[in-house]
Amino acid sequence: MNTFGRILRLTTFGESHGIAIGGVLDGMPAGLSVDFEAIQAALARRRPGQSSVSTTRREEDRVEFLSGIFNGKTLGTPIGFIIRNQDQRSSDYDALASVFRPSHADYTYQAKYGIRDARGGGRASARETAIRVVAGALAAQLLATLGVEVLAYTSSIGGVTLTQGYLDEIQRAEIEASIVRCPEVEKSRLMQEEIHRVQADGDSVGGVVSCIARGLPTGWGEPIYDKLSARLASAMLSINAARAFELGDGWAMASSRGSLVNDEMTTEGGGINHRTNHSGGVLGGISNSERLRLKVAFKPTATIAKEQTSANINAETIRLSARGRHDPCVVPRAVPVVEAMVCLVLADFYLLSRSSQPIERH
Amino acid sequence: MNTFGRILRLTTFGESHGIAIGGVLDGMPAGLSVDFEAIQAALARRRPGQSSVSTTRREEDRVEFLSGIFNGKTLGTPIGFIIRNQDQRSSDYDALASVFRPSHADYTYQAKYGIRDARGGGRASARETAIRVVAGALAAQLLATLGVEVLAYTSSIGGVTLTQGYLDEIQRAEIEASIVRCPEVEKSRLMQEEIHRVQADGDSVGGVVSCIARGLPTGWGEPIYDKLSARLASAMLSINAARAFELGDGWAMASSRGSLVNDEMTTEGGGINHRTNHSGGVLGGISNSERLRLKVAFKPTATIAKEQTSANINAETIRLSARGRHDPCVVPRAVPVVEAMVCLVLADFYLLSRSSQPIERH
Amino acid sequence: MNTFGRILRLTTFGESHGIAIGGVLDGMPAGLSVDFEAIQAALARRRPGQSSVSTTRREEDRVEFLSGIFNGKTLGTPIGFIIRNQDQRSSDYDALASVFRPSHADYTYQAKYGIRDARGGGRASARETAIRVVAGALAAQLLATLGVEVLAYTSSIGGVTLTQGYLDEIQRAEIEASIVRCPEVEKSRLMQEEIHRVQADGDSVGGVVSCIARGLPTGWGEPIYDKLSARLASAMLSINAARAFELGDGWAMASSRGSLVNDEMTTEGGGINHRTNHSGGVLGGISNSERLRLKVAFKPTATIAKEQTSANINAETIRLSARGRHDPCVVPRAVPVVEAMVCLVLADFYLLSRSSQPIERH
Amino acid sequence: MNTFGRILRLTTFGESHGIAIGGVLDGMPAGLSVDFEAIQAALARRRPGQSSVSTTRREEDRVEFLSGIFNGKTLGTPIGFIIRNQDQRSSDYDALASVFRPSHADYTYQAKYGIRDARGGGRASARETAIRVVAGALAAQLLATLGVEVLAYTSSIGGVTLTQGYLDEIQRAEIEASIVRCPEVEKSRLMQEEIHRVQADGDSVGGVVSCIARGLPTGWGEPIYDKLSARLASAMLSINAARAFELGDGWAMASSRGSLVNDEMTTEGGGINHRTNHSGGVLGGISNSERLRLKVAFKPTATIAKEQTSANINAETIRLSARGRHDPCVVPRAVPVVEAMVCLVLADFYLLSRSSQPIERH
Repeated sequence: MNTFGRILRLTTFGESHGIAIGGVLDGMPAGLSVDFEAIQAALARRRPGQSSVSTTRREEDRVEFLSGIFNGKTLGTPIGFIIRNQDQRSSDYDALASVFRPSHADYTYQAKYGIRDARGGGRASARETAIRVVAGALAAQLLATLGVEVLAYTSSIGGVTLTQGYLDEIQRAEIEASIVRCPEVEKSRLMQEEIHRVQADGDSVGGVVSCIARGLPTGWGEPIYDKLSARLASAMLSINAARAFELGDGWAMASSRGSLVNDEMTTEGGGINHRTNHSGGVLGGISNSERLRLKVAFKPTATIAKEQTSANINAETIRLSARGRHDPCVVPRAVPVVEAMVCLVLADFYLLSRSSQPIERH
Repeated sequence: MNTFGRILRLTTFGESHGIAIGGVLDGMPAGLSVDFEAIQAALARRRPGQSSVSTTRREEDRVEFLSGIFNGKTLGTPIGFIIRNQDQRSSDYDALASVFRPSHADYTYQAKYGIRDARGGGRASARETAIRVVAGALAAQLLATLGVEVLAYTSSIGGVTLTQGYLDEIQRAEIEASIVRCPEVEKSRLMQEEIHRVQADGDSVGGVVSCIARGLPTGWGEPIYDKLSARLASAMLSINAARAFELGDGWAMASSRGSLVNDEMTTEGGGINHRTNHSGGVLGGISNSERLRLKVAFKPTATIAKEQTSANINAETIRLSARGRHDPCVVPRAVPVVEAMVCLVLADFYLLSRSSQPIERH
Repeated sequence: MNTFGRILRLTTFGESHGIAIGGVLDGMPAGLSVDFEAIQAALARRRPGQSSVSTTRREEDRVEFLSGIFNGKTLGTPIGFIIRNQDQRSSDYDALASVFRPSHADYTYQAKYGIRDARGGGRASARETAIRVVAGALAAQLLATLGVEVLAYTSSIGGVTLTQGYLDEIQRAEIEASIVRCPEVEKSRLMQEEIHRVQADGDSVGGVVSCIARGLPTGWGEPIYDKLSARLASAMLSINAARAFELGDGWAMASSRGSLVNDEMTTEGGGINHRTNHSGGVLGGISNSERLRLKVAFKPTATIAKEQTSANINAETIRLSARGRHDPCVVPRAVPVVEAMVCLVLADFYLLSRSSQPIERH
Repeated sequence: MNTFGRILRLTTFGESHGIAIGGVLDGMPAGLSVDFEAIQAALARRRPGQSSVSTTRREEDRVEFLSGIFNGKTLGTPIGFIIRNQDQRSSDYDALASVFRPSHADYTYQAKYGIRDARGGGRASARETAIRVVAGALAAQLLATLGVEVLAYTSSIGGVTLTQGYLDEIQRAEIEASIVRCPEVEKSRLMQEEIHRVQADGDSVGGVVSCIARGLPTGWGEPIYDKLSARLASAMLSINAARAFELGDGWAMASSRGSLVNDEMTTEGGGINHRTNHSGGVLGGISNSERLRLKVAFKPTATIAKEQTSANINAETIRLSARGRHDPCVVPRAVPVVEAMVCLVLADFYLLSRSSQPIERH
């Protein structure tokens, strides 16, 4: 199932080392002025080879729009686009064609489909996320017309964790000032050291991406089974290497008490507000006008230079150690992907909320 | 959106204090022998008033099947069923009709729909989960024909946490021996004490439910956007009060290294196996034949007897303290709901896997 | 697949002679005032035993709403409802349990599901359409708030056909004045005679239902694959015994020329109008503000008293003749079903059109 | 909504005179050997400029596959493909940018989206059907592994109609021997004359495409709302210029009697068979193992050289006559499109039937 969303639907295709990867974004309303540079900039944030903490593979990642945009504006028709694959040093991967790398999707794809394109992970490669970033950037532009802004950043790598909780007022420049996308300067430095250390060890390390959204109105989310919280969880766990999700204070609330983590309401200052935001902006699966707050945990990159035991397609035990160029930590490049998926989710719920408006109000 | 699933689709309806709640389970294959007692037993596990740690509200929760089953077997047609609502002491709730309880869905439903049935939380009430339990029990019976078994249990309440990690070999009797559904005897006792303590304080407490599944074949899950991991996350976050999700060692992997948490493979003993299961049975969004392992964090019950500040429908600041009969901790009764949702997810992926079988194999 | 629609989704369940049939209408916006009498009146139009041209089976068909409506208004939550089955003279059908009636779904259901509830046709019975009528009546009430009105009528039975083409200005009273629902008095009389004649012969007869809708705005329909025309065709062919569909002058256009059936446009009188309406109100899959016009052809009732050759479940050739009480012509009772399905389609496209509004206009 | 199908899902994109049109076929099982020449041959059958009865526009229509196929076999991952647009003499269309052509989608697209790419009809152009033909050819190859064959042919153009009813045993060579795709030699000649006559008149003419499928097993179709009949109707009406649909003897059954059009069953010769096939191979929305038989009526090409009255975007009445190169009759080129859509429908129901197999049989 390669389609995400209900009204705003992204369908993606493409293997890592095939001819191209691509997407179709259907359901985008007509009349949106498209900022192509912003899309390309988002792609640049996800691109390999952008800094000393990412893989040295270099991919140009130029998106080519094929349809759905006319004279710079969306037509309301499906937006088709592709990114040609380049730098396909398949020989790096040839040796792996008959091998199942530990904690990769090699074995499960082979078992499920009985066939696979092993080059660079094929369809299971994180390369597919470049398409999400393009679509997410378009969704972000739709959200911007409503004053909604989504920002993700690195909050933890290995044992190094941001001092503060959610950074509700963070700005993009603060994030992008750090090559690991951690806006706290000292922690950013420690995270880089940690990455360089595991890299030197032939190892990899995991981390956490936090994401906030500002400007959400009350009412986005479609209970019972398409709650904002549920869809966000699905979107986050669909990202390569994502392994855990929390909304607001999530995990910590499980060991706390109602009197400590309930978000009391107040009408001070006019209108209804919440005194705290442990809930992360969602109650009953519907946005409550507070900041959206969520975190996603990523496991360490599965590919490591250290020798590991594994199996091959002939069911023989083997020893292998990676030789390709891989990120020692996926987190810095996962930041724009998290952001893109949150944008896609919010834009879809915006469009759904138009449909579900009460009778008298529309 | 009140439908869950793609081939096996559950649609639910009903407000907490309306005439009835109900569901339609569509897509169940024909020919399954239905064990009605097992369904009623599952409902009894979710029922209020079952022990000293749950609300004293008593609901009979007799499910009435209306269609789709003939002479004890499924027809392949939609299975419609209802549970009549009883013990509707609406007067308990009358005072709350114009009030927004903190960390409840009162305000977001009112803002989204412009109208709501405030009695007992209406549609946002956890009462809806009784319908999931019925459908989940049917899904469990389908899975049982394949040798797949799903078991959930309480792994944490407040600060009290199970000593061991995932209990891969747990049996239902061990879980049900504890009224908090924690299979470790001493911890179960401490959890009960914790619940009684917060209850005495007029407070509430959160906790964690763990779930394992045994007997899964390799190949369930439909990348890229309907990964087994993503769908489970969505299913878990769709449950009332759920706030976080992890698969396998999830969160802990974010601070670890690849060499420590990669699941090495081996062919010792014949066939392909994994030496460890940090991944929780899913790689690339597809089951890898290891135990499925996941956890869900629940926040403390939002309704507490302690006085809190809040707002009412006239945008006035108020003080309120709950008088109704509520669970001080949702976790013991959430256990069968987690189990039900995991069963629905797995049964759907089983049916999807029939469709996605490679050509040569079918 | 027992769900119809994308935003406004009807899920139905129930076998003809089971405990109840029912439905869940999800996606109806909140705040609609429900006219229960109008719903019951719509059901009465579909009910068996209403006149000399329909079966003598009498079913009360009282709809019981279980959820989604509070104090007479929709809540925005799913509307669950059931109709208990009555007058279940199963003995009429016992003899048929092992028999496949010609041109019925008996054989295909048995072959597909390996099991079936043969009583009264089970799930394949037209009894299911009572649920569509309830949901359609709710959809009609939503459409009425927009000034959209849908009216179906009988335009042909056997060889007797309405003199005029589409009756754009027809009123419900004119339709309901005829027990065959044909608004042309003389043709109505001839149709009744035709029905009584085939009934006397132990035979059955087919016919055509026409349907028009007034008040549609321009812009309903979602190309390329959810065109208004395509969805209407699907909705019509989902009705029992429906075998053909045309939009506007449909079939006749195939033997005509562009210069004769193109709908020229004009701006006389202000605004853009069409001089003719051969297209039936839809161009490019989108409503063009003209009257919606469509026809559905129904085959003769498959059940006839005349003796026929057929097969039984043991693959033996048999002879059978129907004894039950059946309509000699389904058309008069199909009229409210056509109307209901068109209402469901239009209401769904109305809600979809809210989502697909261009940016600048919303 | 630019996606068709439930398990086998085709998503298309592209405007007539944009950079490219394309599609993503998701859900195709892994392991299918792809015959690329057969796909290109199918495209050639739809291509403009192929004979004296079609437009003189020449489009190469080379499909470029980008993903989902590896070493000639499907991977089970989405199959992305594009066709670059060529011969874009936009100047032919420039004059039409502000004009609404009668019986085209110009006005409805403008009204719905507030913007449109007027060049060549943009998204509403029949050019999009080239993508359906590619996907349909892949679906046909899946069906061929099951022994299912789908063949469409021209059965009527203007007043010239095939002598016989459905041609159950037709072969492709007989169809392709005729440039109008009518397998009856004398009628083919008369149809060509009719087309040349209307062309000389600056006019256009409609017609009918018939389609049969051989080799269907019993059991394809998913009642109640995804009946084989309903989905086929939707698929057919989604095709440009399609205006009516019938299954089997469809329309004629409306004026007939049950005793004349019921399909009696027999067990002569072993197994269960039907003596006639008025039903067109579908009963209760499920295939009954007889030949699938359907017809689609197409209106005359809306674009004609004769002068017509119309309106422009400034709501002024205008006179216009077409100058571009257009087919005087869409039917010969619609034949491969009908075939493609029927293949997509059947292949999807095949995959769905795998999921809905009864328990005991799988």
